[in-house]
Amino acid sequence: MSQKIGIVGSGLIGRSWAMLFAASEFSVAIYDVIHENVDTALVDIQAQLNNLESKGLLRGKINVKQQFALISKANTLEECLQNAIHVQECVFEDLELKKKVFRELDSIASDDIVLCSSTSCILPSLFQVDLKHRAQAIVGHPVNPPYFIPLVEVIPNKHTDPEIVKRTRALFTTIGQKPVVIKKEINGFVGNRIQFAILSETYRLIEDDVISVEDVDTVMADGFGLRWAFMGPWETAHLNATGMKEYFEKYRKSMSSVCHDFGPVPTFEGKGADIMVKEMHKRIPVEDLPERRKWRDERLIALSQLKKKLDH
Amino acid sequence: MSQKIGIVGSGLIGRSWAMLFAASEFSVAIYDVIHENVDTALVDIQAQLNNLESKGLLRGKINVKQQFALISKANTLEECLQNAIHVQECVFEDLELKKKVFRELDSIASDDIVLCSSTSCILPSLFQVDLKHRAQAIVGHPVNPPYFIPLVEVIPNKHTDPEIVKRTRALFTTIGQKPVVIKKEINGFVGNRIQFAILSETYRLIEDDVISVEDVDTVMADGFGLRWAFMGPWETAHLNATGMKEYFEKYRKSMSSVCHDFGPVPTFEGKGADIMVKEMHKRIPVEDLPERRKWRDERLIALSQLKKKLDH
Repeated sequence: MSQKIGIVGSGLIGRSWAMLFAASEFSVAIYDVIHENVDTALVDIQAQLNNLESKGLLRGKINVKQQFALISKANTLEECLQNAIHVQECVFEDLELKKKVFRELDSIASDDIVLCSSTSCILPSLFQVDLKHRAQAIVGHPVNPPYFIPLVEVIPNKHTDPEIVKRTRALFTTIGQKPVVIKKEINGFVGNRIQFAILSETYRLIEDDVISVEDVDTVMADGFGLRWAFMGPWETAHLNATGMKEYFEKYRKSMSSVCHDFGPVPTFEGKGADIMVKEMHKRIPVEDLPERRKWRDERLIALSQLKKKLDH
Repeated sequence: MSQKIGIVGSGLIGRSWAMLFAASEFSVAIYDVIHENVDTALVDIQAQLNNLESKGLLRGKINVKQQFALISKANTLEECLQNAIHVQECVFEDLELKKKVFRELDSIASDDIVLCSSTSCILPSLFQVDLKHRAQAIVGHPVNPPYFIPLVEVIPNKHTDPEIVKRTRALFTTIGQKPVVIKKEINGFVGNRIQFAILSETYRLIEDDVISVEDVDTVMADGFGLRWAFMGPWETAHLNATGMKEYFEKYRKSMSSVCHDFGPVPTFEGKGADIMVKEMHKRIPVEDLPERRKWRDERLIALSQLKKKLDH
């Protein structure tokens, strides 16, 4: 008998989680406050699974029919959570809504289910408050598209039991994702802090007419991004010297001096923003975005397949 | 008759440039102050070309024999520069040495040769000074390994003729690299500023025990790095919203607030550095670095091939 996962919210992220868990042979019950949305989600999930199989991209050891059979509709939140070991909340990014959903989950949760939110930016202690089961509550933030980008940021709230952190990390590892633990709540978690550090510094450089928007993107996509598809920044540094010790000895002064040179935090409006908006909307007009996202996803899929091949 | 490129310095970077130019049917003359070093370099270049061919990775439309025949030894700097359209300086990263080499180049340069340095970190106006031909001098900084990472940072000095900037950018494009122009001299150019922005922020997070070194590397290599192998940070943002305009409207406040939260520039010594050194040297001991670099290069090669395939 499969272990059961509850999914609350049947949008894009909820569907992705359902597919990831079913591929690893968990049974999945999806609940949505608008019940009919789950029917739509199930139709879409079946289509997505068939499409993945036809391209040889289906995850897991069981076939589409078996995977799809593991996913069902829950008509009530109680039904969704009953006998589940973990519930993954995937509702809109709205603090009040998250608070409400967590109060509801709290009122029916057993003492050993994990109550996990998919939030990309709301600190868990802001909505996992005044709960009987707050020690079982946590965040597991996926990156889009989770089927091909394995990172999950796991963030405990101030009261989360360390055992729940371990269980959550282990569960995500079991389904083939790559969880990391953000040990203290922090704005932007870690992924967005890295993104914003880059956006902020390059924003200043573009605004100061040091480099064009397009050239910044080239520095990444034809330069450093190639390494970072395989190795993080610290391994990159370690390999670029005779190890980390020598790296610091050689570069600590220039690292520090360059960082002191960064200038004030931008407001991200005014001259710089105008340049960015103008250039990006010219390069890829809004009406071409869906096509370009398809272009991106094809590449993410191909890279994910390449990495699997190289690692075996 | 092929156009001629001079290479000054026969180390790893000089050899890479020689192969890139020869693959695009330029004739290449390599000069080294220690003349015998060029003989060693030529033997190595032939071995590298044969190895690339055997793996189906050779660039260009002509074969190894034809490419190798285009590369020769120059016995004097005069011979290296004679009739060349561009000379690529690849000596050690030492300011006084670069000054000396540029004075020598200046004394024999014609009025239309480009005098280009491969420096990764020295601002061009620091060593391209007091030169008769300073308007023809510039920097073209490659990324290792240039055969598989196409980025070249082009940095004019304060007096570089805009036509020379254009010519240099066009030349690097001709040989299949991806040049970007850093319009104003700035410490770290752009690539290292991006690297250091990430290292600096994640250093603070690791030192503050928010996340482990290994998990930071996972955030990149199993998360954001996958996107950045294909798209720069600005295109990523543009695609993550309904265009850049909406991205700023939605996220400008949280971007700014997260960046204000970054904390002081680290000195990169003390507690944080100790953690990093300990963890990295445990994860990949110094004696295993050559093997891990091989692992990295295999992946960079495979990704480079994948991107070529996807773009055709």
